[in-house]
Amino acid sequence: MLKYPKPLEDLIEDFTRLPSVGKKSAERFALYVYTKMDEETTHNFSKHLIDVKDNIHICKSCGNICEDDLCTICKDHTRNHKQVLVVETIKDLYTIENVNEYQGIYHVLNGAISISKGVGTQDLNIDSLVKLVQTEELEEIILATNATLEGEITARYIKELLQSYPVKVTRIAHGLPVGGEMSYADEMTLLKAMEGRREY
Amino acid sequence: MLKYPKPLEDLIEDFTRLPSVGKKSAERFALYVYTKMDEETTHNFSKHLIDVKDNIHICKSCGNICEDDLCTICKDHTRNHKQVLVVETIKDLYTIENVNEYQGIYHVLNGAISISKGVGTQDLNIDSLVKLVQTEELEEIILATNATLEGEITARYIKELLQSYPVKVTRIAHGLPVGGEMSYADEMTLLKAMEGRREY
Repeated sequence: MLKYPKPLEDLIEDFTRLPSVGKKSAERFALYVYTKMDEETTHNFSKHLIDVKDNIHICKSCGNICEDDLCTICKDHTRNHKQVLVVETIKDLYTIENVNEYQGIYHVLNGAISISKGVGTQDLNIDSLVKLVQTEELEEIILATNATLEGEITARYIKELLQSYPVKVTRIAHGLPVGGEMSYADEMTLLKAMEGRREY
Repeated sequence: MLKYPKPLEDLIEDFTRLPSVGKKSAERFALYVYTKMDEETTHNFSKHLIDVKDNIHICKSCGNICEDDLCTICKDHTRNHKQVLVVETIKDLYTIENVNEYQGIYHVLNGAISISKGVGTQDLNIDSLVKLVQTEELEEIILATNATLEGEITARYIKELLQSYPVKVTRIAHGLPVGGEMSYADEMTLLKAMEGRREY
């Protein structure tokens, strides 16, 4: 097996670390950098990797990413700071935010309880959420963890943890996706859709 | 639209430059670097990008990539230096080499003649191939450019260019892929398969 020169092999290995990038794709990426990417762009790429590690911080309040101590959402006083939407990841926060509908603030858990992945409650930003409930007069906590086993367990755990506090805890709705046909839905989705039925 | 912090946006843009990487994948890659990749790995990744640009050279003889002046294949005196296989890209060279069958040397054109992409004969390593034919007593030039319009035009151009020299010029075979069914083959492949038929 003919190996690529060491510097290229190293870069291929780096690319394979990225999610869903196999050996073949990593090879294409590394060869692209070598053959097609100009010097300046490559140097910027190299610098940006370090910048991301050095210059992005976690918002002290919600766990979102930002360049300062507080993220733009937490700093925005026109938003409803009494309504907190709890998500598993930063990506989920951006997904919901870009629907342009929600006006409250967020709380990023940084994962979900998972026995198989060895993620316990102590690994998640749950303490800070409880502290927020204790110190602020919140009106509603919306649990928007994923509709997976892990997401459900995490939502249930938080709900029980907050039971003694005077705050409304809600869960986002699960059911048939808009435009989805009954016959294509899986059993669990159909069950959730039935459970969550409302007067019409 | 909520934007990611500047350092992350920059890195996302870098990732989208890679072949077949869209905005969504680039976001996942950049967020992975930020949330999951440790400091040391990220620093190495950053360094390897520069290393690839600085420490990989083009083999003076065949156009392959290497860390010295000559690549390992050209330096290998056990190989048949009278047989030269002409490929479009370095990737093609590695593909053929890793079949572990070919024992000659290579010549990398660095592309193919393409009117739509504005690639002319002067942009390819064709002069050096002619010089090789003029100075060395070669036995065979195998044209292994792609079975595309560009690859065919390039092969034809080189064949005509070398017509006056006493060297055998061959073209790799095109036809039904091994394991392929007739009914799934496209018209051009079937035509090539018919043209290339041999006594059985």
